[in-house]
Amino acid sequence: MNSQWPYSTPGIPDDLFIREKVPMTKEEIRILTLAKARLAPGQIVWDIGSGTGSISVEAALLVPGGKVFAVEKNARATQLTIQNAEKFGVNNLITVPGEAPAVLHDLPDPHRVIIGGSGGNLHHILQLAVNRLKPGGRIVANAVTVETFNHCTQFFTGLNWEAILVNISRTVPAGNVRMWRALNPVYIFTLEK
Amino acid sequence: MNSQWPYSTPGIPDDLFIREKVPMTKEEIRILTLAKARLAPGQIVWDIGSGTGSISVEAALLVPGGKVFAVEKNARATQLTIQNAEKFGVNNLITVPGEAPAVLHDLPDPHRVIIGGSGGNLHHILQLAVNRLKPGGRIVANAVTVETFNHCTQFFTGLNWEAILVNISRTVPAGNVRMWRALNPVYIFTLEK
Amino acid sequence: MNSQWPYSTPGIPDDLFIREKVPMTKEEIRILTLAKARLAPGQIVWDIGSGTGSISVEAALLVPGGKVFAVEKNARATQLTIQNAEKFGVNNLITVPGEAPAVLHDLPDPHRVIIGGSGGNLHHILQLAVNRLKPGGRIVANAVTVETFNHCTQFFTGLNWEAILVNISRTVPAGNVRMWRALNPVYIFTLEK
Amino acid sequence: MNSQWPYSTPGIPDDLFIREKVPMTKEEIRILTLAKARLAPGQIVWDIGSGTGSISVEAALLVPGGKVFAVEKNARATQLTIQNAEKFGVNNLITVPGEAPAVLHDLPDPHRVIIGGSGGNLHHILQLAVNRLKPGGRIVANAVTVETFNHCTQFFTGLNWEAILVNISRTVPAGNVRMWRALNPVYIFTLEK
Repeated sequence: MNSQWPYSTPGIPDDLFIREKVPMTKEEIRILTLAKARLAPGQIVWDIGSGTGSISVEAALLVPGGKVFAVEKNARATQLTIQNAEKFGVNNLITVPGEAPAVLHDLPDPHRVIIGGSGGNLHHILQLAVNRLKPGGRIVANAVTVETFNHCTQFFTGLNWEAILVNISRTVPAGNVRMWRALNPVYIFTLEK
Repeated sequence: MNSQWPYSTPGIPDDLFIREKVPMTKEEIRILTLAKARLAPGQIVWDIGSGTGSISVEAALLVPGGKVFAVEKNARATQLTIQNAEKFGVNNLITVPGEAPAVLHDLPDPHRVIIGGSGGNLHHILQLAVNRLKPGGRIVANAVTVETFNHCTQFFTGLNWEAILVNISRTVPAGNVRMWRALNPVYIFTLEK
Repeated sequence: MNSQWPYSTPGIPDDLFIREKVPMTKEEIRILTLAKARLAPGQIVWDIGSGTGSISVEAALLVPGGKVFAVEKNARATQLTIQNAEKFGVNNLITVPGEAPAVLHDLPDPHRVIIGGSGGNLHHILQLAVNRLKPGGRIVANAVTVETFNHCTQFFTGLNWEAILVNISRTVPAGNVRMWRALNPVYIFTLEK
Repeated sequence: MNSQWPYSTPGIPDDLFIREKVPMTKEEIRILTLAKARLAPGQIVWDIGSGTGSISVEAALLVPGGKVFAVEKNARATQLTIQNAEKFGVNNLITVPGEAPAVLHDLPDPHRVIIGGSGGNLHHILQLAVNRLKPGGRIVANAVTVETFNHCTQFFTGLNWEAILVNISRTVPAGNVRMWRALNPVYIFTLEK
């Protein structure tokens, strides 16, 4: 249990991550994504399009004895992931620089695949993920664009999937009042093999 | 780790709980509520208005070595909580039948207080909860009515709080298509002492 | 101006329509749909999948000197539409019983097409609607299923379209408090020719 | 009927208004607000906290033969309102510079009151609005802060009111895909006298 995040629940606040200008999955979306993934000790997790590594770091804390592979093509984002892993004392997170699905071939078969970003290769990534996923495994994919939503629903046709649509707003201080500020909507897809 | 729920993440599906017609916090709201509570091993948790015990059971799994007190005035709901605790192999959940705040006096000071229902005594419950909460502790309260929202925001004025507004929909099969079905919106308040 | 609805704005309350058990577009979605259609006096409007006629009736009130064609395959729904048209004193609403796109061929070219339901023929309906739509015309389509959303976005690719995602909840009395009750989410697509 | 907006439905796109940096009620919220107000020819409408005048201009188009009083303390916003009224050929919009409720005393009794902003005087504005409102009249108030929401619900207690909570997102192009961008949530209160 790490002193920076001594809790058993996910939900590290966004501003505790080192992120510069790299886009990051927001706290509440991260919480729901990790929960839908049903993580457990010892699991192999692929986090594809891992960005700053916020999901990878939280996943790594939740799979002690397991391994999280943070796959990301942006070199700067991979550096941030390493920094974030260090900050939170995570030692079971392996960064995998490069483009999916190419760089996935050498990784061990996953119990869980989390897809945050796909750089346009979503179809091939999903195909390889479903093939390589261990029986009973889960894929959790976030979609923030119309196109990703369409790709996921079409690819999943005939498979065992469901999705939630998440609209969350937060109170933010504005002078002596509190305004509601909306996060952009996110679809969270879950497929079970 | 329990064989009914061998995962380190919260999010037991709604239909795994024994519930009859007692209202229950829905999976996604439960996940966010537990995450905002920042649970950790060894904590004392009060779950006030615990209903079927779905939050209590998940909290108990997340605070090994700690204790969850499930406070509920509806006797049938308390019975369901006991059944659900058994189903999920939880042995650190203590049911506290009766009305809050009266029945709270004999409980040990909490690290965390989760308020799902208040039976109209919200002001006195919040007052006692804030007083008894250990330093650095957290209160997480769910509001589904206009009145509870008003009470929470007024009570919290001047304290260290924030809230999120959660609108989630789920895909549900309808013939050979999938419809979006909305959960009712829920406010999740978090206060840190 | 009709005595049952003497207002210049859309938004007839749901319970003023005769509806039995036929599904109906909810007031707030109807308001936004009609507004996105940018109705004007003299327009020819096709309302495809018109159900109880709630959108057709409101559209007819908003296009004086124009005509609204309420296309619906369910005979009982067409009867309800006629009753609703009478109730609101609308005399420029023509019911078109039968299945789209077949029954659309004999209708005059539309300035506006509103699509609430498509009975599985969405692709051909959209194709015919775009072809027959007058220059500068608008198509507004509501989607409540994953499949309809997919079809619309794919069909519209390369055309001039946008969409909104609408999540609305209403206060409803529950004893001496007010609960929030969510309407299911609806996508409203707008295409301009 | 004005050539800039020849439609009978509300919903002038945001970017057709001259606005500089003055905050403006967004198109979809404006549509719902005007619809909930149930406007009709000949009505007297007070638009309190009228900002750039977007609601006032649309209301004026919807109450021919009536009058819309655009009450606003920010002098620059009042100038923009005059420009917007000219742009849309509206001649039944009267700007009322100054602070509510003080400047309301000399206005004729309203059929409708729309409250977009209150500058901290909400309680007194609501009190005067309810008193001066003609029988059968309607007040529609938008709330974007926790505090305004609380004030409205408390003031309305015992009166005939309801509210909707509106969460809307729009597709926006981002490269060759479309993202969903959320508008901040808005509460729309309706009171009928």
